[in-house]
Amino acid sequence: MAETVRLDKTSHQLRLLADALDSGRLGPIRRLVNTLSPAEIGNLLESLPLDERVVVWGLVDPEDDGEVLLHVGDDVRESLLADMDADEILAAVEDLDIDDLADLVGDLPGTVLDEVLKSMDREHRERLEQALSYPEGTAGRLMNPDVVTVRADATVDVVLRFLRLRGELPEHTDYLYVVSRRHQYRGRLGLATLLTHDPATPINRLLDSEQPAFDVEDSNDEVARQFSDHDWLSAPVVDNNHTLLGRITIDDVVDIIRDRAEHQALSAAGLAEDEDMFSPARRAFRRRLVWLGVNLCTAFLAAGVIGQFEGSIDKIVALAILMPIVAGMGGNAGTQVLALMIRALALDQIGSSNIGALLRKELRVALINGVCLGIGLGLIVLLWFHDPLLSAVIGTALTINLLTAAAGGVMVPVTLKRMGFDPALAGGVVLTTITDVMGFLSFLGLATLVLLR
Amino acid sequence: MAETVRLDKTSHQLRLLADALDSGRLGPIRRLVNTLSPAEIGNLLESLPLDERVVVWGLVDPEDDGEVLLHVGDDVRESLLADMDADEILAAVEDLDIDDLADLVGDLPGTVLDEVLKSMDREHRERLEQALSYPEGTAGRLMNPDVVTVRADATVDVVLRFLRLRGELPEHTDYLYVVSRRHQYRGRLGLATLLTHDPATPINRLLDSEQPAFDVEDSNDEVARQFSDHDWLSAPVVDNNHTLLGRITIDDVVDIIRDRAEHQALSAAGLAEDEDMFSPARRAFRRRLVWLGVNLCTAFLAAGVIGQFEGSIDKIVALAILMPIVAGMGGNAGTQVLALMIRALALDQIGSSNIGALLRKELRVALINGVCLGIGLGLIVLLWFHDPLLSAVIGTALTINLLTAAAGGVMVPVTLKRMGFDPALAGGVVLTTITDVMGFLSFLGLATLVLLR
Repeated sequence: MAETVRLDKTSHQLRLLADALDSGRLGPIRRLVNTLSPAEIGNLLESLPLDERVVVWGLVDPEDDGEVLLHVGDDVRESLLADMDADEILAAVEDLDIDDLADLVGDLPGTVLDEVLKSMDREHRERLEQALSYPEGTAGRLMNPDVVTVRADATVDVVLRFLRLRGELPEHTDYLYVVSRRHQYRGRLGLATLLTHDPATPINRLLDSEQPAFDVEDSNDEVARQFSDHDWLSAPVVDNNHTLLGRITIDDVVDIIRDRAEHQALSAAGLAEDEDMFSPARRAFRRRLVWLGVNLCTAFLAAGVIGQFEGSIDKIVALAILMPIVAGMGGNAGTQVLALMIRALALDQIGSSNIGALLRKELRVALINGVCLGIGLGLIVLLWFHDPLLSAVIGTALTINLLTAAAGGVMVPVTLKRMGFDPALAGGVVLTTITDVMGFLSFLGLATLVLLR
Repeated sequence: MAETVRLDKTSHQLRLLADALDSGRLGPIRRLVNTLSPAEIGNLLESLPLDERVVVWGLVDPEDDGEVLLHVGDDVRESLLADMDADEILAAVEDLDIDDLADLVGDLPGTVLDEVLKSMDREHRERLEQALSYPEGTAGRLMNPDVVTVRADATVDVVLRFLRLRGELPEHTDYLYVVSRRHQYRGRLGLATLLTHDPATPINRLLDSEQPAFDVEDSNDEVARQFSDHDWLSAPVVDNNHTLLGRITIDDVVDIIRDRAEHQALSAAGLAEDEDMFSPARRAFRRRLVWLGVNLCTAFLAAGVIGQFEGSIDKIVALAILMPIVAGMGGNAGTQVLALMIRALALDQIGSSNIGALLRKELRVALINGVCLGIGLGLIVLLWFHDPLLSAVIGTALTINLLTAAAGGVMVPVTLKRMGFDPALAGGVVLTTITDVMGFLSFLGLATLVLLR
């Protein structure tokens, strides 16, 4: 009762587990693992190297297997499924809700999927097929068709008796939905409202018809935004005819928000949000090679620019020493603007009406920064190389590159998005290529013009 | 009714708004703005340049002012508060819940705060002072003290009559809390359970005593983790004596999750999550200057390394052309590992028991990548400069730097965290400094040893 939760629980468990695995006694591990919630077990499995993961996965209570599979990333899920035979998978998934099962289906081996479908009764199978008919990433795929509906012409008393007869409500039910004779959505009725009103009150006086419904084709992003803008815990989903199809609950929305945040953080480094920390080296290597290969190509672009100024570097070797500073500072400044823009784009805060003001503001900031840092950099270079002209050149080049970074930081993500690319994925590569090229070009170019004529 | 929500709502509104602002007619803007929820108005205000923001803010229904202030970042909030006089602020905040008011208090001008406190009745003032006594970032600050409690020795019928007498329940109430005579938390009782059981059933048979309570001192991060691990919609908060103090609801937890994701995304670029997209240039400039200044210092470190090999570059200018490639590729590879590590650290998935396995895996990946990319890079360099030894040098240097990046990518964030720094904030700077230095050192060092002896 009222057990107080503890900080750093997982890493504490990791240590206990490592000790138990070392000693080879599986009993304590089984007891430890089965005190955890499915999400916690999933988190634990993700943090284990492959060989230990297999051992611990074998000790999880089979009843929890299905829920655990739902709580791990795609890559880890694949590694867990690979370790189960068809019967085990079948047992794991048969008790899942329809929306959760629809989530898993894509990862199941074909033969197992057939078994699953065969083992279901007709009603369940039809509901699963219905769920699978909506594309991934839409409200239809996200919703649970299990909804309690009442009619507007009933009274509180009638609904109370109906609920007592019905028994248990679907998880996270905070509202019942009021529908017409033809099952069209009319509004919602809070459990709290039911409990605080006189039994004789007619439902149509209590009904909240202000709550809008999602269209079954609305995107996950739209669903997440509406939920957090309105602090909803659940919301109805309807089709074109306003027929009530199901209900989306906040716990699934929280998963979307977390996944999207992970996607943003990882895709900037060319990684997928499902990346398994312990995926086999062969596999991790192939994915990262593509990303590093792209970066290698852009690096050659920059090297090509330097190559144009071979003669200048040959004469003044200080240029080679200083040129990475100008390029690198542009990259840093650009990354700052890019980070702000990616957030704003995700929140849908950028439009043709404010992009101009934003660009002007960033150019202004870059100009002040360029002048301040340019003077600072110039002074240090003066102390180092005792050449006032070289100082002036590097200070000017830095200012030019910071202005380039500001313009690029605003325009690159906007342009990428308009072209249908993910700014979080490609923005960094494109932008640093621009700041590298402009950094080398402005510094070496100015130096050639001013110092070598 | 069942109005279907639309994609890209905000940017559509932005365009309408820009048109209306251009035409100078404020009536349509007022009507447009006041169809939005407070969170949507907040989002809209954040996307407006300062002069337009002031105009639109003046058109928001004063009744919504308080809620809107809650839904914008600290910087934007400051810009909005600066535009209100004391009476307006007082009117805006007086209807807020205690936990929301506690959130705002830090941003209110001192004189206004005194006014607010004076205008409250004694009970409210005491509750606000109580809320403010818990440190920011803890369960105590997050909870709402407004909780409905019942006693275990009652029956369903008694509770139903009590609720009808009481009337409206606090927002998002899904469970009532069962307490002892001395107000100690004993368990929870779902509204759904109340509705689906016979009126004569005693509460102590329906009571769920499995739901743990948060300690009032638990951190926001711990609260967020537990909520998403267990799919809770609300949870009780107790003190050391298990006395029930309040209740945390999922909508506040969603805000924490979003804030933390923003913090991670922006702090990697040295920005605060409260950064206002349109903060005055003077202000934005000062904050960014610090970050760029730090980066400038690390750039000089790398330049210093290059400076040690002045003689070598003077003899072979190709070294200057190629050296940024080796340094930059190390930075890219390191950033990938760092992104994975920061996610895993946030999920508390890293401990002394798996760090070794992780390091070995990343070194293995880096070695394969290094050999593949090293051969590729070597071949291109061979075609460009026709010097097999130079090719061998750059391929080897790249492999060395990728191994450095892997080791650094794993160890830098772990070490920073152990030292009490935020790996998301400082990890990138430290790591790219290491890969820059090692990139120049390995390439120019090897070249000096092999090509110039």
